[in-house]
Amino acid sequence: MNEYTYDRIEVGMKEGFSVRITEEEMTKFLEITKDVNPLHNDEDYARSKGHKKRVVFGMLTAAYLSTLAGVYLPGKYSLIHSVKTKFSGAVYVGDELRIEGTVVEKNDTFKIIIVKVVMVNQNQEKVCKAEMQIGVI
Amino acid sequence: MNEYTYDRIEVGMKEGFSVRITEEEMTKFLEITKDVNPLHNDEDYARSKGHKKRVVFGMLTAAYLSTLAGVYLPGKYSLIHSVKTKFSGAVYVGDELRIEGTVVEKNDTFKIIIVKVVMVNQNQEKVCKAEMQIGVI
Repeated sequence: MNEYTYDRIEVGMKEGFSVRITEEEMTKFLEITKDVNPLHNDEDYARSKGHKKRVVFGMLTAAYLSTLAGVYLPGKYSLIHSVKTKFSGAVYVGDELRIEGTVVEKNDTFKIIIVKVVMVNQNQEKVCKAEMQIGVI
Repeated sequence: MNEYTYDRIEVGMKEGFSVRITEEEMTKFLEITKDVNPLHNDEDYARSKGHKKRVVFGMLTAAYLSTLAGVYLPGKYSLIHSVKTKFSGAVYVGDELRIEGTVVEKNDTFKIIIVKVVMVNQNQEKVCKAEMQIGVI
């Protein structure tokens, strides 16, 4: 876990990591949320909607923003204030995502950083963009 | 699960549900994300930061937006395009949240609805506000 204090953070700093979203994460997310929507839980239904397999819950993809802020950027002293997430392509079970954040702004008065995030899959397709306001406490 | 088609949805429609966030959901979310940040995982650390106990991961609170869209509003035909989430108060392990969404806009060209969401805890304190753009497919 990184432990960047506010003063050590500079605009332009980048941090990232990779994850593979498997059946296991899908099952746990379903157990948490009880989101039984068939697009995420029924292979045949997902196919009938033009997908090659079950679509990963968007908010499961977004869950990794927690890791980005809490472990990587800024790490230990993170407190997420707000998040804007845009899903730009479907994520499928088994996909490997690269999640990368860049500090684009610092607010010295409130000790808040703004981190822009891009997530790409194993085919380098952009699947999610996000912007996070994170307090460094 | 609701099965609202685009035509049956009207501006002003509301749907909601309640959840209690327990140790179990915290553990599963940690297993998914590997977000080991001490504010969420270490009672003493959370107290040292002025909290009465461990703070629920913000993105775990946000995970229930998946349920709101995928099960309640619109339900079956939901496809989340984008989400803006603002955390306005800490959520603690054991808190019971009421999550309520209201349709505030319809976009007939793209068959997208905009749903505003408010989450309050058992003390009627607002802990999260969100706005979701959801395709009805």
